[in-house]
Amino acid sequence: MEFTAKQIADMIGGRVEGDEQAKINTFAKIEEGKKGAISFLSNPKYTPYIYETQSSVVLINEDVELTQPVSCTLIRVKNAYESVAKLLQLYASMMPKKTGIDPLAFVSKSAQIGENVYIAPFAYIGDGVKIGDGSRIYPHVTIYDGCQIGKNVTIHAGSVIGADGFGFAPNQEGYEKIPQIGIVIIEDDVEIGANTCVDRSTMGQTVIHKGVKLDNLIQVAHNCEIGENTVMSAQVGLAGSTKIGSWCMVGGQAGFSGHIHVADKTFIGAQSGVISNTKGNGEQLIGSPAIDPKLFFKAAAVTKRLPDMYKELAALRKEIEELKKTK
Amino acid sequence: MEFTAKQIADMIGGRVEGDEQAKINTFAKIEEGKKGAISFLSNPKYTPYIYETQSSVVLINEDVELTQPVSCTLIRVKNAYESVAKLLQLYASMMPKKTGIDPLAFVSKSAQIGENVYIAPFAYIGDGVKIGDGSRIYPHVTIYDGCQIGKNVTIHAGSVIGADGFGFAPNQEGYEKIPQIGIVIIEDDVEIGANTCVDRSTMGQTVIHKGVKLDNLIQVAHNCEIGENTVMSAQVGLAGSTKIGSWCMVGGQAGFSGHIHVADKTFIGAQSGVISNTKGNGEQLIGSPAIDPKLFFKAAAVTKRLPDMYKELAALRKEIEELKKTK
Amino acid sequence: MEFTAKQIADMIGGRVEGDEQAKINTFAKIEEGKKGAISFLSNPKYTPYIYETQSSVVLINEDVELTQPVSCTLIRVKNAYESVAKLLQLYASMMPKKTGIDPLAFVSKSAQIGENVYIAPFAYIGDGVKIGDGSRIYPHVTIYDGCQIGKNVTIHAGSVIGADGFGFAPNQEGYEKIPQIGIVIIEDDVEIGANTCVDRSTMGQTVIHKGVKLDNLIQVAHNCEIGENTVMSAQVGLAGSTKIGSWCMVGGQAGFSGHIHVADKTFIGAQSGVISNTKGNGEQLIGSPAIDPKLFFKAAAVTKRLPDMYKELAALRKEIEELKKTK
Repeated sequence: MEFTAKQIADMIGGRVEGDEQAKINTFAKIEEGKKGAISFLSNPKYTPYIYETQSSVVLINEDVELTQPVSCTLIRVKNAYESVAKLLQLYASMMPKKTGIDPLAFVSKSAQIGENVYIAPFAYIGDGVKIGDGSRIYPHVTIYDGCQIGKNVTIHAGSVIGADGFGFAPNQEGYEKIPQIGIVIIEDDVEIGANTCVDRSTMGQTVIHKGVKLDNLIQVAHNCEIGENTVMSAQVGLAGSTKIGSWCMVGGQAGFSGHIHVADKTFIGAQSGVISNTKGNGEQLIGSPAIDPKLFFKAAAVTKRLPDMYKELAALRKEIEELKKTK
Repeated sequence: MEFTAKQIADMIGGRVEGDEQAKINTFAKIEEGKKGAISFLSNPKYTPYIYETQSSVVLINEDVELTQPVSCTLIRVKNAYESVAKLLQLYASMMPKKTGIDPLAFVSKSAQIGENVYIAPFAYIGDGVKIGDGSRIYPHVTIYDGCQIGKNVTIHAGSVIGADGFGFAPNQEGYEKIPQIGIVIIEDDVEIGANTCVDRSTMGQTVIHKGVKLDNLIQVAHNCEIGENTVMSAQVGLAGSTKIGSWCMVGGQAGFSGHIHVADKTFIGAQSGVISNTKGNGEQLIGSPAIDPKLFFKAAAVTKRLPDMYKELAALRKEIEELKKTK
Repeated sequence: MEFTAKQIADMIGGRVEGDEQAKINTFAKIEEGKKGAISFLSNPKYTPYIYETQSSVVLINEDVELTQPVSCTLIRVKNAYESVAKLLQLYASMMPKKTGIDPLAFVSKSAQIGENVYIAPFAYIGDGVKIGDGSRIYPHVTIYDGCQIGKNVTIHAGSVIGADGFGFAPNQEGYEKIPQIGIVIIEDDVEIGANTCVDRSTMGQTVIHKGVKLDNLIQVAHNCEIGENTVMSAQVGLAGSTKIGSWCMVGGQAGFSGHIHVADKTFIGAQSGVISNTKGNGEQLIGSPAIDPKLFFKAAAVTKRLPDMYKELAALRKEIEELKKTK
């Protein structure tokens, strides 16, 4: 498939600067541009590449001012990142998509599978599981008995939905298992990355609400609840019974104690440790224990000077003792 | 199945307060209670729910004093958490349990499988592997050649037992692999969560002792040893040759350097970094590098004031210089 | 198979001290030595074991001075660790090796598989995937469509190569998926541990260069690049578009922000958080945010005294105020 810059601009409501007939047939990152490719410039760190890219066409925000001439054709748009996303969606929608239940998948006879579902080879769908229309289950996904998956849910390879929550009661000789008789509910439009784990609840449900996006290698413990449209980067961990609000953003490797509530629209930095309820909407937190980011980075800067501060403190003590003697 | 409050109380040695004939047929969390359900109250944070729960019956500790009347029937017990565990175990023991080797599992001809073992579809059991009686191996578990699994061991979906330890020797051109010819031994009554990795040793054994409970996404490197009845939360990582004592508790995302010894009954907080041998029984550690928890939380509180302390230190210096001039 | 100390010494260019005819037929760790076993001593922490080991033969560095007599036969070598690696390689090369495509693997008809490749049961090889000669793909590995694997690559159980990068654009109602149309390229001689994830790029390639060694449970996000012969311990996480140089060493659980460059030969400590470009070759970093290790450990030592410093600062303030009054 080949398109002209004009055709692309019309698709996404952009304005061409340069050769309207420039032809493109593929995508490329701006720093790896080549003839026939369309690239985009969104992150200002990559601006220098626009002057040297080999790509034929570059999507760029309307308000970016260029300081030198460029050899590529530009398509000016309101938001280059959104426009490239739209183009990639158009491109992906033209690609053939796998569908149906692969004969190498295991699907329990008592599972209820919706329409237009893809279940890959070696996926395991347990007894009583429900999977809504349009969902995609990749290889080596395990969905334990009784868990419910909504519509248009994507679960990438190796993720495990509904393994037992981690519940044991100590006695004299060791630990007794607390049976985990609850389930996992994953609502519509959720995407779950590879090798992520969402444990079933002790009783009741572990719930991943509508539109949540979880990256790879994340741990969601029993009885947790993640609010609508919250996104979490890779390797985040939630201890049991914690509730995360909607529209939160959580950086990679962050951890949450059990039984806490995180408010809607909270932003949690990478590697943070959140150990208590958060205050309210729009709060930002980073560090372990997590605090305000401005304070965190100021304190981190001072931390480097701690050894000097320690010496200075001792020096001041000495000088004050001298002063006291001589006053 | 339906039971009366009286019948339940008799099963677990409790005392009914309220309607002895109250009927229950399911479990529910206290905050999600409904008619016909039994709930429990153990964590004091959830006490307010007892006054509004819709559950018909609630298990509660003998010594909890209620300040208002409740509409549910209470069963007073010594330890509500242990009692609900016992009830859940009774409930689970009445449920049908999968057993046998699923025809979709791969089990090497040279593997030795005990009695009453469940091996799920897509589990992989390598050459020479031994699995003891009553063990349960969930989908997508890989047990590499030669590893030994005890009795009544549970391994959840996607966990990998016996992949090569991470051993490479550098040379001029790159790294040479150090073959890992040891095995993994998992003793009786161990439970391993989903997507956890226990590497085989370079030589000798990586050993998970009796009664250990490992959560999801944990890394146990080659030649490690974890003592009896130690429990580790999700995403913990152990570097090579480290030995953890018995009856330890390790919080999520904690990490351990290689070649260290952690004493019995050590409590390690979430996200800690343990980089040297620990002192002795009952020690508590948190932080990275890990220190005493009281000190850790005091220091964390002061850390927030570090920028102010830095300014104050400079101010004091200035004032002392003034005083010196004028003395 | 049985060898004499003399035969072993000849294989690895070592010198026998003790009984040249001492027979060995297995390997053992020095602290678990037994008759007929060969052990090695490399880490000085293990030196005391040489005086009590039951092993018949021990490999030891030429320059180690022993302070007491030993009952085992020694083989003196330049580098005991390299020598044992060499012996283990000889041993491993004599063991039978699985090869070929197991009938229980799924290999797309459009995949191109090289010579002497092993593909285990339940491995999934997608459309258009290429796998070079001599590579080994263990059970439950998923290689998504279009990804390219070089020669002599090993991928351990459960790892996922080429799942979608984590790319979503927010809109009013939720997040729209940004299709990930790029691939993953894994070059020759790479080893990847168990349950590790390498995501495909949005466009272009995520690249793991020649000789890289990745441990278990690692996250490599879309559009990342890892330079030749870099090694990463378990549970490390890289955010999107980050480039790591060659010959770097990264400790377990370390994390990297997106869009940063780490120079060649950088050493990153365990649990570090690297949030900006690094300076140059040979740099060492630890902590979160990562700083110079000497400074990190000094600051960590002072951190323990922070509560005392805070009190001392208040005391000095008070004393200065007194001095000011009385001057």
